[in-house]
Amino acid sequence: MLVKHHYLSLDPYMRGRMNDAKSYAQPQKLDEIMVGGTVGEVIASKNPNFKAGDQVVGFGGWQLYSLSNGRDLQKIPPLGLPIQAFLGTLGMPGVTAWYGLKKIIAPKPRETIVVSAATGAVGAVVGQLAKQAGAIAVGIAGGPEKCKLAVEEFSYDLCLDHRAADFADRFKAALPNGIDGVFENVGGQPLELSLRRLNAFARVAICGLVASGYDGTPTPIRDIGFLLTTRSKIEGFIVSDHLDLWPQAIQELSSLATAGKLKWRETIAEGLDAAPAAFIGMLKGANVGKQLVKLA
Amino acid sequence: MLVKHHYLSLDPYMRGRMNDAKSYAQPQKLDEIMVGGTVGEVIASKNPNFKAGDQVVGFGGWQLYSLSNGRDLQKIPPLGLPIQAFLGTLGMPGVTAWYGLKKIIAPKPRETIVVSAATGAVGAVVGQLAKQAGAIAVGIAGGPEKCKLAVEEFSYDLCLDHRAADFADRFKAALPNGIDGVFENVGGQPLELSLRRLNAFARVAICGLVASGYDGTPTPIRDIGFLLTTRSKIEGFIVSDHLDLWPQAIQELSSLATAGKLKWRETIAEGLDAAPAAFIGMLKGANVGKQLVKLA
Repeated sequence: MLVKHHYLSLDPYMRGRMNDAKSYAQPQKLDEIMVGGTVGEVIASKNPNFKAGDQVVGFGGWQLYSLSNGRDLQKIPPLGLPIQAFLGTLGMPGVTAWYGLKKIIAPKPRETIVVSAATGAVGAVVGQLAKQAGAIAVGIAGGPEKCKLAVEEFSYDLCLDHRAADFADRFKAALPNGIDGVFENVGGQPLELSLRRLNAFARVAICGLVASGYDGTPTPIRDIGFLLTTRSKIEGFIVSDHLDLWPQAIQELSSLATAGKLKWRETIAEGLDAAPAAFIGMLKGANVGKQLVKLA
Repeated sequence: MLVKHHYLSLDPYMRGRMNDAKSYAQPQKLDEIMVGGTVGEVIASKNPNFKAGDQVVGFGGWQLYSLSNGRDLQKIPPLGLPIQAFLGTLGMPGVTAWYGLKKIIAPKPRETIVVSAATGAVGAVVGQLAKQAGAIAVGIAGGPEKCKLAVEEFSYDLCLDHRAADFADRFKAALPNGIDGVFENVGGQPLELSLRRLNAFARVAICGLVASGYDGTPTPIRDIGFLLTTRSKIEGFIVSDHLDLWPQAIQELSSLATAGKLKWRETIAEGLDAAPAAFIGMLKGANVGKQLVKLA
């Protein structure tokens, strides 16, 4: 099969692949096509399950076309949703949000859930799912514009700007009843502040440490004694370990999207040449919502 | 009811109660009887469920007798087991071992489980339960005598002396296949070493931080990035949160003990006056197995 890529997805996990270190995935090999999720259109097919014109999602990598035997491709269901959503809210980032929130945090009504990178491709979904579960969703984002977006578009009850000089004080003041769940995408100071305010039996899902971990800056915990006094758990997860749950997650997310109950934003770079700068920008928080590269 | 105490239990949680800090339990109040588990004999009873001569386990505190309405007392089943075992292997420490191992670590056959304070009242039970689950049990203890005991009495496959000068090297050499579960009673350097060698999907149960936490010395984690790369979890627990499971746990442990499949050791101080020194000694690792005070 020959597939023409319409969009390439840029995701924080790619930064991890660029480290030559033991991890859950092999490092990206030099002089090979950089890994990446893609949506596009089948141009020609010798696979009887696909025909020219089919819209598909897969891992075609940072290139304009890819060859495939079809095993790593999924057809995009004809729901009238934009195909690039299957790289974001209805794809890997959306399933990541769904898994971490539903399977690790499992919020109960009126619990307080803190989400970092609240307007990112993952965080925007976490906030909306947390509210639908009856929880109080508190976002953390960089800058007043993102915070406004988190509240107005993504259902957060409130959102705190981690770039504000008085962030630590505001954080404390905003959480008088403590924290029952943390969906962590960033690491660093916001996570440290969250861990200090955990209630009994809190659940902390570590999804990413984009601001601190990928560049080798550690995210420390000064004292794990709080795990004992609060009987909390901290758990790291990678959504690709749970492929068995993807169909359920995508079905639930697509139903919400079709019903207008799930919103998202995209930041789109034009052309493959723009991908490296867009990727670096994303790691620094320059994007709003899902970072995509338009290829065709 | 008037109960005469035969044994008082000394447990690490008591040290936490002596801190004036937010925790899962209220601090011990000054000028009141210090809290503590006790076994003894009913001397007189106006409660129809108990009669003089009944053997009971409860929380009578650091004193020779206690008054009770019976609500906080359990009758000791007539299995021919020594009554003080219901303060140790068949009581709170045993249930603690059972809960942390079975409900948090849940070892699978051939997995490697590391247990600190391996000859303590809790650790001795963890090692034997881990072996019965088909896992490889690696103990950590202070001194060659305790390590010998861990292997010869408590079923550990091997035991490492954390006081040895080359402990870190031995630890690494002893765990060529990494670690799938950690039952942590101590904190400090051994825990740091364990966290560096976790396999994918490892489970770390934080039961106590006796060596580092109770005196205010923190147990830090330098970088939580490993939680993401290994998709592991760290969870603190307190056995008194799970009272619903105590009958099941004590029934299972008593069956093993009656069948001769569960061994334990005791260190017994004589008389209430000896309790403070025995308590301080226990926090420093001077005891072997369950630390008790004989009162009658």
